[in-house]
Amino acid sequence: MHTITSSVFRTEIMTVPGGTETIVRGGRDLFALLPQALHGVRRIGVLGWGPQGRAQALNLRDSLAGTDVTVSVGLRPGSASAADARKNGFTEENGTLGDWLDVAGTSDLVILLIADAALAANHEQIFAALAPGATIGLSHGFLLGHLTSIGSDFPAGHPVIAVCPKGMGDSVRRLYQQGETINGAGINASIAVHADPDGHGTDRALAWSIALGSPYTFATTLRSEYLSDIVGERAILLGAVHGLVEALYRHFRIGGDDAVTAYQRSTESVTGPIARTISDSGLAAVRAATGDEDAFDRAYAAAYQPARDLVAEIYDEVADGTELRSVILAEQRLATRPMTAISGSPMWRAGTEAHARREAAPAVVDPLTAGLFVATMTAQADEFAARGHAWSEIVNESIIEAVDSLLPYMHARDVAYMVDNCSRTARLGTRRWGPRFQAAYEQLALPLADEPAADGLIKEFLANPVHEALAAAAVLRPSVDISVS
Amino acid sequence: MHTITSSVFRTEIMTVPGGTETIVRGGRDLFALLPQALHGVRRIGVLGWGPQGRAQALNLRDSLAGTDVTVSVGLRPGSASAADARKNGFTEENGTLGDWLDVAGTSDLVILLIADAALAANHEQIFAALAPGATIGLSHGFLLGHLTSIGSDFPAGHPVIAVCPKGMGDSVRRLYQQGETINGAGINASIAVHADPDGHGTDRALAWSIALGSPYTFATTLRSEYLSDIVGERAILLGAVHGLVEALYRHFRIGGDDAVTAYQRSTESVTGPIARTISDSGLAAVRAATGDEDAFDRAYAAAYQPARDLVAEIYDEVADGTELRSVILAEQRLATRPMTAISGSPMWRAGTEAHARREAAPAVVDPLTAGLFVATMTAQADEFAARGHAWSEIVNESIIEAVDSLLPYMHARDVAYMVDNCSRTARLGTRRWGPRFQAAYEQLALPLADEPAADGLIKEFLANPVHEALAAAAVLRPSVDISVS
Repeated sequence: MHTITSSVFRTEIMTVPGGTETIVRGGRDLFALLPQALHGVRRIGVLGWGPQGRAQALNLRDSLAGTDVTVSVGLRPGSASAADARKNGFTEENGTLGDWLDVAGTSDLVILLIADAALAANHEQIFAALAPGATIGLSHGFLLGHLTSIGSDFPAGHPVIAVCPKGMGDSVRRLYQQGETINGAGINASIAVHADPDGHGTDRALAWSIALGSPYTFATTLRSEYLSDIVGERAILLGAVHGLVEALYRHFRIGGDDAVTAYQRSTESVTGPIARTISDSGLAAVRAATGDEDAFDRAYAAAYQPARDLVAEIYDEVADGTELRSVILAEQRLATRPMTAISGSPMWRAGTEAHARREAAPAVVDPLTAGLFVATMTAQADEFAARGHAWSEIVNESIIEAVDSLLPYMHARDVAYMVDNCSRTARLGTRRWGPRFQAAYEQLALPLADEPAADGLIKEFLANPVHEALAAAAVLRPSVDISVS
Repeated sequence: MHTITSSVFRTEIMTVPGGTETIVRGGRDLFALLPQALHGVRRIGVLGWGPQGRAQALNLRDSLAGTDVTVSVGLRPGSASAADARKNGFTEENGTLGDWLDVAGTSDLVILLIADAALAANHEQIFAALAPGATIGLSHGFLLGHLTSIGSDFPAGHPVIAVCPKGMGDSVRRLYQQGETINGAGINASIAVHADPDGHGTDRALAWSIALGSPYTFATTLRSEYLSDIVGERAILLGAVHGLVEALYRHFRIGGDDAVTAYQRSTESVTGPIARTISDSGLAAVRAATGDEDAFDRAYAAAYQPARDLVAEIYDEVADGTELRSVILAEQRLATRPMTAISGSPMWRAGTEAHARREAAPAVVDPLTAGLFVATMTAQADEFAARGHAWSEIVNESIIEAVDSLLPYMHARDVAYMVDNCSRTARLGTRRWGPRFQAAYEQLALPLADEPAADGLIKEFLANPVHEALAAAAVLRPSVDISVS
């Protein structure tokens, strides 16, 4: 699962803790190889125009400009997204915008980027519309999880490949655009070749990934991607961040801070300086940046085990299918009970004021906040390692996606906005698990954070192989501006 | 499902909203009928000596004293409970204490009161040990849920009956003892006749229920009992209470209260005066007791829908089997990751001080706390009604069990002690759902509780049929002292 063999692109060996992985470095200099690597794919159809569909359609079209490969967008009849697609040059007139089933039926590579619930409800008619031998493209493993849960499978005879950018659609587009001046800028991606009847699946996936602007591409399986993706968003990417800032905001308020200060020490600290420090210099650098290593150590030691236990619980439920079952039950309830937004609480109103004060009083790395956050991030990485994930998948899903994509986005909007506006599957998962993290911090970690740190945990943290793996991944990407305006 | 036909006991018609239910009133005057109603059951074996096993074995033995029906206790080899059983007169010497499989094999009615996990792991060997035609007795529907989830069933040829006291073992014993002076004191119970090969299941279940001291017995099915029991403990009985007091304690602290005051306004208010008011006078009486109906109304209106949505979510997950699957996954993790206690936070330390101050400064009915709590209790009752449960089951599982059994126990210990020491299934469920209720109160209800109440919700509350159903149930039980020392 961790090796890549390509007849078109040069592979590289990346040294990771305990071994090596094969990866492919991206870059605009490789765009000329894309048509060859696509092995006969001349029409790419992107179904859906959500953040990911929009970003991928635009990046693919830009990267393939001047070749004989066309990119079209397929939308459901009456889709509200059609106007924005047209504004971006995908039009009926030039033949690059059409009904989703028409586009599915006339494309050689059909990339399924509609919402999970729509995919669950409509995959059969999409499969039925495919041309013989057309490649099915996915950007995360949800559909595999769904098909497994209903005892179904992908249709025989079709290649099934996945390219999974480790970042939000917004970042996939924004960092790709930086690639015009910084070669190799973009969001890393994993590839998985799930069905490969003609033997060209890997090259096609690599071409798609490089066309999206991935600084480097690593290999996984659809199952492994599904597990790490769904667990990651429920833990460090969204659920744990939300739970953490809800717990810490109240903790600082009870400790005497005014609302804006409490918001700065919790939310702003995580989405701003902590994320930037990790992006620039890695996890251990946060400890030094606190200016109070003892306080960091106590917080880290108090939070590590509760966070690890929760990540393990989420992992079990995702692997078992229980989590997906919950999402489907929730989708059914949404027909009569609309989902409520969480952004109405006083904490998020304080956020507006904190944002306004950024220039005058920028947030710093709070040692308590940093210890809890880094402990949770490390706990997720450790749990993924214990479950056998490749290091590239571990550091991209647990760290790089957080600090280079989601946290900068939350810093620009806020955490509540992110939770209220992410994908339905992610939103439902965040609402399930965020409160569990909050309770774990409040009931287990914070009461312990005043006590001396268990020495072993800090030694283990400083010697954790995750630092080496993260450094190896950092070498492969150029320095980018992660900030979101 | 809501009618009872008995050849021994007099049934009564109870008027409930929209119809009637058949019930059987208890009382010590009926004990003389027990041997006849047991139809050939002469040896009752109680497996397990947890709170429920202990209470039921003692009550059954006391009620059947002087008859030819014997009660024995069966324990696993090396059980730590043997000493307490012997101290209470169940001994090897007098033939009323033995190995669980021996007792199972020599009893005419085998009451399974071992822990859920032990039942899941060992039900096959217990079934294999049963004498031909022996009756299987249950006190909640967990085993049916487990057997369904593994595609199994109860063994053929055995009557399967359930008597499900709507209270903790501690209350089942304590209120029964009050029955020595107050005829009819005890904990209400439901009965379910799941398999009835000889046609005497109902009479045997009624005899067992009356022997436990149930003021009144109502009919349900094992499935309906399972659903309401598991949902109830995850919602108003435990999960919602824990989530509510965690949310309110922090809310009052942030509002400026010292720790003890915040604890009094949240935890003490719920477990003390609010529970007592409902037990004595019903739900609507709480509104008057606040002295600030407007504040109560605002809190009620803010919390009702979020609480209702959560109860619906829990119900879906329990009905679907998802919740039970989570419990089984959690049990597997406990082999390597012990469950942590939640009682270490500053809130519970404030509780100790609040308990000490009770005489000098008793807690009052806080209007915000009361509005949130009563809204949640009403939401559970409404959701159960919408799902077709009988009114006796609704009010016993949603209200009477809470105010007459669990809340008084929490008032004597505290909520954290209760959560850390209840049954494993309940404890796991509370840890899953308590934080969800906390988040719903914090993120959805409390931000709205300052705004004028939606008029319709309060009118619906005041006209809610649950008040009539609760009043009908109240008529059937004598007034008891619910306090726990």
